[in-house]
Amino acid sequence: MPNPDDRLARLRDHLAGAAHLAQAAALLSWDQVTHMPSGGAEARARQMATLARAQHARWTAPELEELVVALETDGVDGAPLAGDDAALVRETRRLLDRARSMPADLVAAISRQRVRGRQVWGQARADDDFASFAPELRAMLALAREQASAIAPDAPAYDALHDLYERGSTAARVAALFDPLRDEVRALVVAIGASGVRPDAGILRREFPEAAQEAFAVATVREMGYDFTRGRLDRTVHPFAIRVGAGDVRITTRYRTDFLGSALFGTIHEAGHAMYEQNLPAQHVDTPLGGSVSLGIHESQSRLWENLVGRSPAFWERAYPRLQAAFPGVLDDVRSEAFVAAVNEVRPSLIRVEADEITYHLHVMLRFDLERALLDGSLAVDDLPGAWRERSRALLGIEPPNDREGCLQDVHWSQGMVGYFPTYSLGTLASVQLWEAMARDLGDLDEFLREGRFAPLLGWLVEHVHAHGSRHEPEELLRRATGAPLSSEPYLRYVRAKYGALYRLA
Amino acid sequence: MPNPDDRLARLRDHLAGAAHLAQAAALLSWDQVTHMPSGGAEARARQMATLARAQHARWTAPELEELVVALETDGVDGAPLAGDDAALVRETRRLLDRARSMPADLVAAISRQRVRGRQVWGQARADDDFASFAPELRAMLALAREQASAIAPDAPAYDALHDLYERGSTAARVAALFDPLRDEVRALVVAIGASGVRPDAGILRREFPEAAQEAFAVATVREMGYDFTRGRLDRTVHPFAIRVGAGDVRITTRYRTDFLGSALFGTIHEAGHAMYEQNLPAQHVDTPLGGSVSLGIHESQSRLWENLVGRSPAFWERAYPRLQAAFPGVLDDVRSEAFVAAVNEVRPSLIRVEADEITYHLHVMLRFDLERALLDGSLAVDDLPGAWRERSRALLGIEPPNDREGCLQDVHWSQGMVGYFPTYSLGTLASVQLWEAMARDLGDLDEFLREGRFAPLLGWLVEHVHAHGSRHEPEELLRRATGAPLSSEPYLRYVRAKYGALYRLA
Repeated sequence: MPNPDDRLARLRDHLAGAAHLAQAAALLSWDQVTHMPSGGAEARARQMATLARAQHARWTAPELEELVVALETDGVDGAPLAGDDAALVRETRRLLDRARSMPADLVAAISRQRVRGRQVWGQARADDDFASFAPELRAMLALAREQASAIAPDAPAYDALHDLYERGSTAARVAALFDPLRDEVRALVVAIGASGVRPDAGILRREFPEAAQEAFAVATVREMGYDFTRGRLDRTVHPFAIRVGAGDVRITTRYRTDFLGSALFGTIHEAGHAMYEQNLPAQHVDTPLGGSVSLGIHESQSRLWENLVGRSPAFWERAYPRLQAAFPGVLDDVRSEAFVAAVNEVRPSLIRVEADEITYHLHVMLRFDLERALLDGSLAVDDLPGAWRERSRALLGIEPPNDREGCLQDVHWSQGMVGYFPTYSLGTLASVQLWEAMARDLGDLDEFLREGRFAPLLGWLVEHVHAHGSRHEPEELLRRATGAPLSSEPYLRYVRAKYGALYRLA
Repeated sequence: MPNPDDRLARLRDHLAGAAHLAQAAALLSWDQVTHMPSGGAEARARQMATLARAQHARWTAPELEELVVALETDGVDGAPLAGDDAALVRETRRLLDRARSMPADLVAAISRQRVRGRQVWGQARADDDFASFAPELRAMLALAREQASAIAPDAPAYDALHDLYERGSTAARVAALFDPLRDEVRALVVAIGASGVRPDAGILRREFPEAAQEAFAVATVREMGYDFTRGRLDRTVHPFAIRVGAGDVRITTRYRTDFLGSALFGTIHEAGHAMYEQNLPAQHVDTPLGGSVSLGIHESQSRLWENLVGRSPAFWERAYPRLQAAFPGVLDDVRSEAFVAAVNEVRPSLIRVEADEITYHLHVMLRFDLERALLDGSLAVDDLPGAWRERSRALLGIEPPNDREGCLQDVHWSQGMVGYFPTYSLGTLASVQLWEAMARDLGDLDEFLREGRFAPLLGWLVEHVHAHGSRHEPEELLRRATGAPLSSEPYLRYVRAKYGALYRLA
């Protein structure tokens, strides 16, 4: 019998092994969309499946269960666990139980179906051919239901899945936030439409050379605090941030020479995610405690830098002359105010990832409604395109002319990610709540933005969010950081003030 | 008891899992030197160690041993194994026994020491500070001795290690080839020195823009048959080829704007390695039978394309005008004959990787002599720099002015790779032996080179070398392909004819 006092060390060792396998899988994913030659796709799917099985084997290993039981029962040195040690064992227990509840065959089936679903979805989207994707969606939904009943047999299926992305949250909680928010947002959209103010968004659609876009985006996120010695920026079709390991958190973006907004705000958004990952607690590296706590909190970081910082008038007071200099001749005739109005244009549109920070919620709500109905079977897969058009008209007042710009636009469902979309809105709400709390501590944040002093802002986020890793549940983390549970009020105060001024609302 | 008849399928499954872990490790290695930010180094070492342990665990798993014993004892369907099935079990047995002979602690110790040795060696080389590297070399040699006695307790240590790279080969076999070769090579170098012919190698040291070098190298290796849909070319300090998976074999190179030879011949060399890997038998993918058979055979492929093709006068008859066009104005005054003479200049020099195809062997022989002495202790690590200078003067007639250009120039020993160097010369000899056999089958190969018809050449190599994977031992593979065991004679015929003409020797 090994010395019980090194149980924590052995637990960390075991968890680190699982973490390294996950990190290897992360690099394989990153490579797949950045550098892998097309001929490597088949082998990559097999490699990913093997790594998924190896991770699952590590999480379900009897020696891990024994270690955790011993720590739960006996603690260390005869005393019960406390502080971070207790949190580590609690987090390990949560993930271990989830892994053990998943049959290995189901893990493998989901892994295979994700690869297949991704491939068929990509082709169906390109061809605007929903019918070819429908069988895959049905298969993935069946697996998602199976997964839900495996991991939480007593909970509603939607809650079981949503909890994977936003632990402690439920459909009821989301609905309670979304119901009043929906009305407020739609009222605001109507008022903005009626205001008569029309920003000239065409100025963002001039010719912006790629190299200059990249240089400006890199300079911007470096100033904000994204550390390139512990990260890098590559090009992908779909931008993302990914942690490949401690000290290695990468971001990707895409450039459109005919649209400045894509790479600029996309890079800031992903850098927001990445700064969270770069500042997670180093003492808990390679353990669940050292990881990000939820997708909602993750999104609060990306949205905060993208919107609260990157789309604020105060930020552009300093940044706009630099932007003009970065693209000689292109924006000489555009005043700073017109530029700020353009990057904050509010207009119902079809594509979620291109939506402004107000109508964005309507895209999320549409998906939240439809994915619950798909999961519980009240909406048949074949009826999804029609239901999407109907909800789009009801919520946004417009209807997609095809499924490519409708129900085929997002990858999530093809991957079995049901219950994921709400985290985008939860994160947006949390971002403003954190911003208000930061302002209470630091004073007028516009001053910081005007002077380009981002370090105190990042420092506040590190102290109140990043450094805690997964020590607290998301709701508790937010309560500690802001003094209140998640609410729409800070967000509504913010958009009313900002867009009231931009659109000269009464 | 599972059906014995699916034992082969289960064997393949088990081996595939090990292969996928090795492929993940290959991608991590590739990324480490192409794209990884510096901050990722520590995590990468931990990830690699975890993958090494996971591979070792798979190779030493009791169920693998049981499967192999059952197949060895009972065969399949009551009949003994034959053909590729028998070869697969034989290869698995060889690797399994080797893995089981290695204690997990030794595997981990070597993995750790390799990371450390690499790091210290890199710094020591940069600082020309052998003393700082000496303790690491001593540690690595101790581990190499331990490894040798673990895997082959009854064999001489050098043979045990050399067999890792060139199975079936021994120090005695290498010495039997090297002893006469040494005298022939030195005689040839003396004759060339006395010839009075002096190619103007300075024409390779003009200004060659990087982008044009890359475009020319890519076009060249694509024509030769390197498939970019199943590979890619990146930049690294030390060029290499690496198999990341079936359908994904990557190469790297380095560009020097003041030296054309570096990227051009380096890329062809690595593409030669990669074409071997791209054409291994697909039906044996992810099994030991589907892998390359030895480093000597590997090097025969890279050397064949680099030297027999890439440095031949016939090749440049067609390629030289294209090269001139790729670098407008740079080579206008240089005739094809002068260019061919320059890329075939024979001159004793200090750096192995920059040596011509004749003096190259002397660099290898120097290392072969010294590494045997280091391993058996007759040469103390502290005496290595002096011994290197002495051997260099004896073999090459020149002495390095420092250790950076002397005993610190190669990475191999820092990685515990003792017994590796001879494979470079064995491969060079094999490349010409294969070339002669190819000429017997296909006719005048110069005709093919003049017309740029590389597909029949590659086809011959695929049929006689690549497609066999590890089915035969290297010596047997060569005997089947060429009708004879490995010999220096084809090589000596080739260099006497080629350099006799270039240097107008009697």
